[in-house]
Amino acid sequence: MIIPKPARLSPEQLAEISAIVEPFGCRIQPIIGAVRNIYAIVGDERDELMTNRLEGLPYIERVDKMQSPYKLMDRRSSLSGNKIKIGNLTIGEDLLVIAGQCTIDPKNPNYFYETAHAVKEAGANSIRGGVWKPRTNPYSFQGDNKSLDILMEAHRRTGLPVDAEVMDEHQLHLAIEAGVHMLQVGARNALNYSLLRAIGGAVASRPSTVVLLKRSIHMGPLNEFISAAEYIAAFGNPNILLCPRGTSPAIDGYRNHPDESITPLLKEKTWAPVVVDPSHSVGKAAYVPACALAAVAYGADGLCIESHISPSKGIGDDPKQALTPEMLAYTIREARQLWAARREARAHAPEGISPAK
Amino acid sequence: MIIPKPARLSPEQLAEISAIVEPFGCRIQPIIGAVRNIYAIVGDERDELMTNRLEGLPYIERVDKMQSPYKLMDRRSSLSGNKIKIGNLTIGEDLLVIAGQCTIDPKNPNYFYETAHAVKEAGANSIRGGVWKPRTNPYSFQGDNKSLDILMEAHRRTGLPVDAEVMDEHQLHLAIEAGVHMLQVGARNALNYSLLRAIGGAVASRPSTVVLLKRSIHMGPLNEFISAAEYIAAFGNPNILLCPRGTSPAIDGYRNHPDESITPLLKEKTWAPVVVDPSHSVGKAAYVPACALAAVAYGADGLCIESHISPSKGIGDDPKQALTPEMLAYTIREARQLWAARREARAHAPEGISPAK
Amino acid sequence: MIIPKPARLSPEQLAEISAIVEPFGCRIQPIIGAVRNIYAIVGDERDELMTNRLEGLPYIERVDKMQSPYKLMDRRSSLSGNKIKIGNLTIGEDLLVIAGQCTIDPKNPNYFYETAHAVKEAGANSIRGGVWKPRTNPYSFQGDNKSLDILMEAHRRTGLPVDAEVMDEHQLHLAIEAGVHMLQVGARNALNYSLLRAIGGAVASRPSTVVLLKRSIHMGPLNEFISAAEYIAAFGNPNILLCPRGTSPAIDGYRNHPDESITPLLKEKTWAPVVVDPSHSVGKAAYVPACALAAVAYGADGLCIESHISPSKGIGDDPKQALTPEMLAYTIREARQLWAARREARAHAPEGISPAK
Amino acid sequence: MIIPKPARLSPEQLAEISAIVEPFGCRIQPIIGAVRNIYAIVGDERDELMTNRLEGLPYIERVDKMQSPYKLMDRRSSLSGNKIKIGNLTIGEDLLVIAGQCTIDPKNPNYFYETAHAVKEAGANSIRGGVWKPRTNPYSFQGDNKSLDILMEAHRRTGLPVDAEVMDEHQLHLAIEAGVHMLQVGARNALNYSLLRAIGGAVASRPSTVVLLKRSIHMGPLNEFISAAEYIAAFGNPNILLCPRGTSPAIDGYRNHPDESITPLLKEKTWAPVVVDPSHSVGKAAYVPACALAAVAYGADGLCIESHISPSKGIGDDPKQALTPEMLAYTIREARQLWAARREARAHAPEGISPAK
Repeated sequence: MIIPKPARLSPEQLAEISAIVEPFGCRIQPIIGAVRNIYAIVGDERDELMTNRLEGLPYIERVDKMQSPYKLMDRRSSLSGNKIKIGNLTIGEDLLVIAGQCTIDPKNPNYFYETAHAVKEAGANSIRGGVWKPRTNPYSFQGDNKSLDILMEAHRRTGLPVDAEVMDEHQLHLAIEAGVHMLQVGARNALNYSLLRAIGGAVASRPSTVVLLKRSIHMGPLNEFISAAEYIAAFGNPNILLCPRGTSPAIDGYRNHPDESITPLLKEKTWAPVVVDPSHSVGKAAYVPACALAAVAYGADGLCIESHISPSKGIGDDPKQALTPEMLAYTIREARQLWAARREARAHAPEGISPAK
Repeated sequence: MIIPKPARLSPEQLAEISAIVEPFGCRIQPIIGAVRNIYAIVGDERDELMTNRLEGLPYIERVDKMQSPYKLMDRRSSLSGNKIKIGNLTIGEDLLVIAGQCTIDPKNPNYFYETAHAVKEAGANSIRGGVWKPRTNPYSFQGDNKSLDILMEAHRRTGLPVDAEVMDEHQLHLAIEAGVHMLQVGARNALNYSLLRAIGGAVASRPSTVVLLKRSIHMGPLNEFISAAEYIAAFGNPNILLCPRGTSPAIDGYRNHPDESITPLLKEKTWAPVVVDPSHSVGKAAYVPACALAAVAYGADGLCIESHISPSKGIGDDPKQALTPEMLAYTIREARQLWAARREARAHAPEGISPAK
Repeated sequence: MIIPKPARLSPEQLAEISAIVEPFGCRIQPIIGAVRNIYAIVGDERDELMTNRLEGLPYIERVDKMQSPYKLMDRRSSLSGNKIKIGNLTIGEDLLVIAGQCTIDPKNPNYFYETAHAVKEAGANSIRGGVWKPRTNPYSFQGDNKSLDILMEAHRRTGLPVDAEVMDEHQLHLAIEAGVHMLQVGARNALNYSLLRAIGGAVASRPSTVVLLKRSIHMGPLNEFISAAEYIAAFGNPNILLCPRGTSPAIDGYRNHPDESITPLLKEKTWAPVVVDPSHSVGKAAYVPACALAAVAYGADGLCIESHISPSKGIGDDPKQALTPEMLAYTIREARQLWAARREARAHAPEGISPAK
Repeated sequence: MIIPKPARLSPEQLAEISAIVEPFGCRIQPIIGAVRNIYAIVGDERDELMTNRLEGLPYIERVDKMQSPYKLMDRRSSLSGNKIKIGNLTIGEDLLVIAGQCTIDPKNPNYFYETAHAVKEAGANSIRGGVWKPRTNPYSFQGDNKSLDILMEAHRRTGLPVDAEVMDEHQLHLAIEAGVHMLQVGARNALNYSLLRAIGGAVASRPSTVVLLKRSIHMGPLNEFISAAEYIAAFGNPNILLCPRGTSPAIDGYRNHPDESITPLLKEKTWAPVVVDPSHSVGKAAYVPACALAAVAYGADGLCIESHISPSKGIGDDPKQALTPEMLAYTIREARQLWAARREARAHAPEGISPAK
């Protein structure tokens, strides 16, 4: 749909537009308004190059695109029945909870083993542990390959699947070889398309691997978020969880701007499950339980929560934002109760409420 | 606390600073750091003029203030035991629900009477009805004094207290005279200090009147929000409900940026109850129930929800965002259940979770 | 233009839509696309109520409006030749500079008289002086009626027209009676429609009075800004200057987020002159000159700059952000040179550059 | 500096804090205020882990850090005299202009050769050409290795140094081997620390290579931006240009939120030159000249501008935002005049204006 600057386009302008769209298999249909005309593009208007060329014309205000830019992740795509399993849990049957430390301390592996047992005890389905860490300050601790062994050992000790962030192809291949069950793309790399492509391809060779894709740290539009998932799917693996984790700038006093509210909007566009990270959203343990419940109220399918057996001994973000095992158990219990109540209530809800039953 | 630009201040600079702060009854105490010094202001550092003068010095980076700018609304003030009643409900004993139309249609008063009965039936404690409306477009319908009679008639028919927005002193006096029980300050006037002062003074003469203060439409800092309440309290009436209602810019696809997440942050600073407006936050009926539940998850004391007996016949925002009575009843039921569950759970929660029990 | 949620609307849905738009004198014309249809509204689609009713239908994604909501302020309106005069300057013939104190100190009127002489000397066309002040903290100095006499005395001593902010009808009438030449609507009252109406009406009785309308402190859309001006014009006075002054939240380290960049966007929509306030944008004297020049680079017609004969003795914002007379003279000289160079260069610029010659 | 939640800390709390900071070589010094105390950390307080541990304590409000997190990029570091050369130009002697196409079209290399000649003619010092492109849509054209040959051929034909974006290590090594003179890190990879490290290391082996580091697409704090540069410097190459390019969300109607205004703020913190990209800030050719001039007004050392011999034939962003050679020549001429005028004026400016002479 072309919105021109003048009230109507001249025949010459229309001819110029037609010459642009025809090579893309499209044609133009004017819509005659009382005050001004607009012009429909009939055909597949998704090509960005065609749009850019049209928007480059001095008499065009903007071009509105009507079609989904994500073929595989669209809620109406053939993939929409895709069931994702994490350990014994199929997403949708109960609330998924991923919990564990921001950062594994390679000098003190027992903290992580104890955390792993504690989060299992508290009800988590999967254990997260940061092996490599993106740090603003180049002189801060950046993680250690040895932590990968600690992570896999925690898996062996608890039987739970494990999750780690990868930031480049080298780390990706180490993680895949070690057998990490869930790979996380962090907020700073959410638009690192080279990495997304590599993950899609690498994971395709081990199709049970799941990708937890964090939302970019800026308030990017939802289409951009889902398109990042489309990269991973298009290169071979559709087992993707979308993870809102708060955006920047943080205005109100939290670490980030909480964005669990996008859950219903995502669910209208894509079939992908939504797993909210309240820990990075609010950035302080005291606020995490309330944010986790709000995410469930908005329809989230899962939560990703930082927890540590002894937060003040943690490294990375843990001293600030990790829940104690007791706080985690409380949060999981409350969140699962609310999740079940919401599922029950949605089944009997009046028409027209989002997210739908 | 003065943060200088250079590593340390010279004796001449210190003398200049002392000359500024002494007339305000303060003195300066240097804090010697390994790499740089900072300088504490000992005394009451709240005066903005002193701060501005200090920040005007070319060698000062910034001044951090340590004290509350709101004497009455502060959580630690003598007013913190203030109990606010709306009709039969004392805030804190159950979830407050204010519900009703964005705008009363003076040509069709029966819609409002039917809405009033329906929201009472659905469980609301108070009825809202827009008499006068702030509209972006000067040529849109701006409300009508006749609607004030319709509002009060709805009160007489249902027995419920009623709420209306006032935008200037003239409307304020009409509303007070008519006996409106709750006065609303809208987001566009949230920093209209002349109006806030007038409301504080006028309401003081009828002390049972409650003020519902919406947060400013921009993402203003929380101190600014609470200071706006301080104006009303300082001029005579402390019965104030703080109402987050979404902020601008709206990035993600809602009408505004939902901000119910500020509830725990407000509760750490002020004793004032928090009543969230999910209708203006999300701007579309389908999303209101989820947003309402998220607000309760974050610890809100009440909700302010738009509802209409027949939304498509409404005027103002109602066709888009008003819930049907059936959707409202569903939302209130679910929200009250969650509110009760949260209260119960908070009583047994581990230490350190916000908002506190 | 109606964008539906499904690919196409059913005949029943189309009938329901027609029943909504026909009472507003409109009809629906489907535009058949390859993948989905959209539906043009033929007729005057500006009525918000019609739009709201349409957007309330569960199968409508959104409604795009094509027409200007501001009849008088639109660049193509009959008012677009309106010439605004401030003292001896007709806007457009040279760069307008309004300069003076944030706040007049009623206890020290000589500061203001000296400032008035100094800004005249530095090249300003008009003198600003805050008589009444909106302050976040209710216990801060709020201004004083006596300052109005000081302001008018400064006019008599210098011959320059004077400018003051008014925040309510009482102040408005005092200012009009005293003969203030330019009335300022501050950022906190930029959407206070009762005040805008009152100003439009009051000023209509003294048609040479000019209104300096600040942009709302939130990043409101430009249509909202221009619509606020439309209120003033619709109630009787079209002599309006639009004043970007930085928006909130301030992310980068300034007092606000500088927004002089909207100047070309405003000029595409409205004929109203743009007068940028760099002082509130950046909030610190050191940055004001660069911001002022950037505003001129973007095509601003004028500047509104805080200045004080001795900033550290000022009250209000002056100690932080007021320029010394020497800095002001430097800024005006540089800005006028750039303004003249830009005017000259624009006259010979290649086609298609905004703002146009 | 530790800001506690209560008015003063207990001896037990102080002991707990001391136990945290002492292993980091720090100690605590209380600062006794009239109303509350704060607590200085004496020693090197930069370690994030210590800060996180302190902020994890339930009685700590926040910790303010006083020291620079960037050792090499800090304006006061030993590197601050570092002179960066691009071709024949030493930054600071004249305005640097990098110009060229968003994307090289490998099917039509002559467009790029003609563009290269045209931008040289227009006055550019360096030629940019996108070889590989980050695209939101995985199905859009992503660039082509063949374009690297075209880029280097353009260098040979014009004698000007060339610039290309690299998004992963593979592209980085291809670009280094081919002899690309300036490597660009795009906004989506601005926090991809693995890539930053790799670039620092690879470029160190060819020390004349310059890195153009775009600001992250979100409104990240300036410290984060400069810390990203610190990564590159710390791994071996300090020849870094900081490039503001507009941030997201874009509120006002441009492609991004123009952010050239951060230039003086950057210059207070770091010695690195600032090269503004007006093309991505505003996203439309018509607005680029005004934005470029505003950047120079704010003190920018250079500009990075998209240009194309025939924009409507371009691919990528060029049809929308590339300047014609005629518009580019106009912009460079005006910008260099303003740059020279600013340099001259700054030399005679009153004290206290930023950026300094």
